[in-house]
Amino acid sequence: MSKSAWQHLGDYLKDTQLLGSIQSTLYWDQNTSMPIAGSSWRGEQLSLLAKQLHARQSCEDFENLIKEAKSDLKHLKEKNNLESHLLKDRFRNIELLEQDLKRQKSLDPKLVAQLATAKSEGYMRWQEARKNNDYKSFAPALKKLISLRKEQSDQLAEQRSCWETLAQPFEPNLTINRVRELFKPLKKRLPELIEKAATSNSKKFSKWDLAISDQENLCQILLNDWSRDPAKTAIAKSPHPFSITLGPDDYRITTRIVKGQPLSCLLATAHEWGHSLYEQGLPSESHQWFAWPLGQATSMAVHESQSLFWENRIARSLSFAKSFWHHFENAGAPIHCENDLWINMNRFTPGLNRVEADELSYGLHIMIRTDLEIDLIEKGLPVEDLPFEWNRRYLNLLGVSPENDKEGCLQDVHWSEGMFGYFPSYLLGHLISAQLTKTLEKDLGQIEKIIESQKINTILEWLRKNVHHYGRSLDSEELVKKVSGETLSPNYFLEYLDNKVENLSKIYD
Amino acid sequence: MSKSAWQHLGDYLKDTQLLGSIQSTLYWDQNTSMPIAGSSWRGEQLSLLAKQLHARQSCEDFENLIKEAKSDLKHLKEKNNLESHLLKDRFRNIELLEQDLKRQKSLDPKLVAQLATAKSEGYMRWQEARKNNDYKSFAPALKKLISLRKEQSDQLAEQRSCWETLAQPFEPNLTINRVRELFKPLKKRLPELIEKAATSNSKKFSKWDLAISDQENLCQILLNDWSRDPAKTAIAKSPHPFSITLGPDDYRITTRIVKGQPLSCLLATAHEWGHSLYEQGLPSESHQWFAWPLGQATSMAVHESQSLFWENRIARSLSFAKSFWHHFENAGAPIHCENDLWINMNRFTPGLNRVEADELSYGLHIMIRTDLEIDLIEKGLPVEDLPFEWNRRYLNLLGVSPENDKEGCLQDVHWSEGMFGYFPSYLLGHLISAQLTKTLEKDLGQIEKIIESQKINTILEWLRKNVHHYGRSLDSEELVKKVSGETLSPNYFLEYLDNKVENLSKIYD
Repeated sequence: MSKSAWQHLGDYLKDTQLLGSIQSTLYWDQNTSMPIAGSSWRGEQLSLLAKQLHARQSCEDFENLIKEAKSDLKHLKEKNNLESHLLKDRFRNIELLEQDLKRQKSLDPKLVAQLATAKSEGYMRWQEARKNNDYKSFAPALKKLISLRKEQSDQLAEQRSCWETLAQPFEPNLTINRVRELFKPLKKRLPELIEKAATSNSKKFSKWDLAISDQENLCQILLNDWSRDPAKTAIAKSPHPFSITLGPDDYRITTRIVKGQPLSCLLATAHEWGHSLYEQGLPSESHQWFAWPLGQATSMAVHESQSLFWENRIARSLSFAKSFWHHFENAGAPIHCENDLWINMNRFTPGLNRVEADELSYGLHIMIRTDLEIDLIEKGLPVEDLPFEWNRRYLNLLGVSPENDKEGCLQDVHWSEGMFGYFPSYLLGHLISAQLTKTLEKDLGQIEKIIESQKINTILEWLRKNVHHYGRSLDSEELVKKVSGETLSPNYFLEYLDNKVENLSKIYD
Repeated sequence: MSKSAWQHLGDYLKDTQLLGSIQSTLYWDQNTSMPIAGSSWRGEQLSLLAKQLHARQSCEDFENLIKEAKSDLKHLKEKNNLESHLLKDRFRNIELLEQDLKRQKSLDPKLVAQLATAKSEGYMRWQEARKNNDYKSFAPALKKLISLRKEQSDQLAEQRSCWETLAQPFEPNLTINRVRELFKPLKKRLPELIEKAATSNSKKFSKWDLAISDQENLCQILLNDWSRDPAKTAIAKSPHPFSITLGPDDYRITTRIVKGQPLSCLLATAHEWGHSLYEQGLPSESHQWFAWPLGQATSMAVHESQSLFWENRIARSLSFAKSFWHHFENAGAPIHCENDLWINMNRFTPGLNRVEADELSYGLHIMIRTDLEIDLIEKGLPVEDLPFEWNRRYLNLLGVSPENDKEGCLQDVHWSEGMFGYFPSYLLGHLISAQLTKTLEKDLGQIEKIIESQKINTILEWLRKNVHHYGRSLDSEELVKKVSGETLSPNYFLEYLDNKVENLSKIYD
């Protein structure tokens, strides 16, 4: 039997996905193994692949394959030859492919290659600049990336502002207005909560640390408890922890050891593992969906909702501290009890670092970055002024000011790779996580009780059944509405934080 | 100014090299990081790249670029417009490109893709089979690889036997007759030397080991002493140590820890670093040659001559033991003195494992494998009979017999990836290393004295100046003749072994 148009399209998408996952493998290697002098050649490799991928994703052959598959699909629908849920999935796949194709076709291949080189160059400069605390050496690369991204937005010519256009790949259908609307109550309430936590908590934290091997061991235990299959997952270290999928059965995460912060590695592992669990739960059975849009993550906010869920709702919960405490005891951690571990997991001290930030101040880190990148992209904020503006806003909103750019505007990798529009996803992720957890608790009972009874698996099963498997069939707001029955709101997140601050203050009493 | 035909060809070769180095990066990742379940998708990625590479290396566009560059070159020659050594280099580049193109053009793209998949599949099966000591589960993959390789040889249709054809990519111009001629004196003399070493050395070696972190530390010290630039080199672990170049400034090696063999990791590191130093010394200035044939290693025998040189002539020398001893003392190694370290580095005990073999028995391991693969490829030895034949020949030639296939015919990776014709390179490498060392000593004085006076750098400089920079301008026998003034001979290697056995017996007295 000869292949159907649908199968031909599938074959084509699979080769595209093979190339894409090769690109991801180079990225993984760049961050975990590559010696620094390899950057320039790696940049050329990535640029070559970017050119190839762009060509595949924008060419006439591809367009025709989509057209033929769509026409076949209409035929099947008319003849009632396919079950309705399959029809619906297929039409959604076609819709997403057409949308992606339209975007790719709008881009000049020259720009695509330039962007790939600039991203690689930017990342290299950023690494050096951060090491030497030398923002000036990074600024030209950032300027270049901003200008190329603006050009990209011009070429895409969507009915959206420039920043919104760039945010689409991370957060489909996001608007600046919606971001402002969702973040507004947080901007008011978070500083109040920080204030409240500070007054009720006068405890001075003592400094302590754990040996690298002990921290690694704790991460191993955590991942084993949280359903890790070593045949399908690999773990490495990188300066900036991340999660990446390199094939339908090949999931990787990285973590890092931070001197003087004995919980950082464990929490980063929990966070990245949350990302990976979402990827592992996407509808990719027997590679069938791996190459199709529906098999992909719907947005970075949903991705973050999953990583933040495992980091904050699980690893930072009191019941987790209770059930995990003995492992810290065995490692000889110089803390005294379960409550002590919990308090250490939840130090509410506004600081300079986003990744190490507590749940109260995290949102403020994001709002500063979101505002800054909108200003850089749309409001003409000069790249040279970024350090000054960064420091000013940190002082205003968090009451702290970095001593140097390494701790300030050079701390995050995103802009160095030209990723603008990504940051809000982190905070949206917090909101989504809180709202989904509310529904999970309606279905399964209090999450603290589930963790205490060591039934983490029932939580994972619920997420797989209710969240992960949708892939790109729903965008993030649709997904939240589908699962929780309500529009996304910041209230659940604020309610959760209120409770946490309250419960912590009781412990301190 | 518009680009010359030479520059157009260079651009083309560079993109090919970019793709080739992407392939190598996937291979590196497969061996150092990839979870086992990723194998199948990795196989498909490699197969896709193999297809692309083959297309690039066999297409009409490429052929035309070569033709145009050659015609331009002839023009330049007629007009006397290029210095004669540049002309010579360029004509050699063209000659090698034409030769490689002819080979690639002869191959059916379907076969190329099948081979890539079979290699990846074979490697996966071999890993599993070795783990479970289950040769039968590997045999079908090996059979498939042999049959595809034979087909490849048929398609190449060279004026050589099948095994010789397959050996060409590793060892240009090698013939079975020449292998037999060079190995014959060794087959007679090596067992005699083993006998002699056994009688003069009645010492029983005590068992000892070193902590993993101490072994890693010793390797770091060694590499620092041996000119490692961490900005250009990365080190990882893999089941089978290897060296690989991923870009003009990106060199990687792997090593491994073997329980109960405290020197294995250090010697593997020395060996792989020797490979890497050769690669680092190839004429690749400013990427100019990285993509051209002349910038590549000339053969695996020359490659092995360099790795074996650093492993055996340096790391296994008495003067190295003297100068490195205190590091072992610091690590708390339970051996007693410099001589003791030297003796431990040179345990002459015929064993089952090639990689862990001493210099006396190493050659016999190679001869067994060389004979076996010629039998498999050309003489119809059934794949099923391999374990029996392997064990029989080990008993005959080395007086030992493996208890299982894991320690026997499953120990090496080569055949699992369809590499036939590679093994003789190791022994040829021993011969070349010995003959080149003779010349080095004529130029610089006794190697033991150079090592003792900690002037390792003068040795590396000599190798760079006299050996490495030739790239593919000379094949291995031409290179040996150029450097030493004589045809390659097994005598220098035997002379060296004679001396070593003699000197060791003096220590034992």
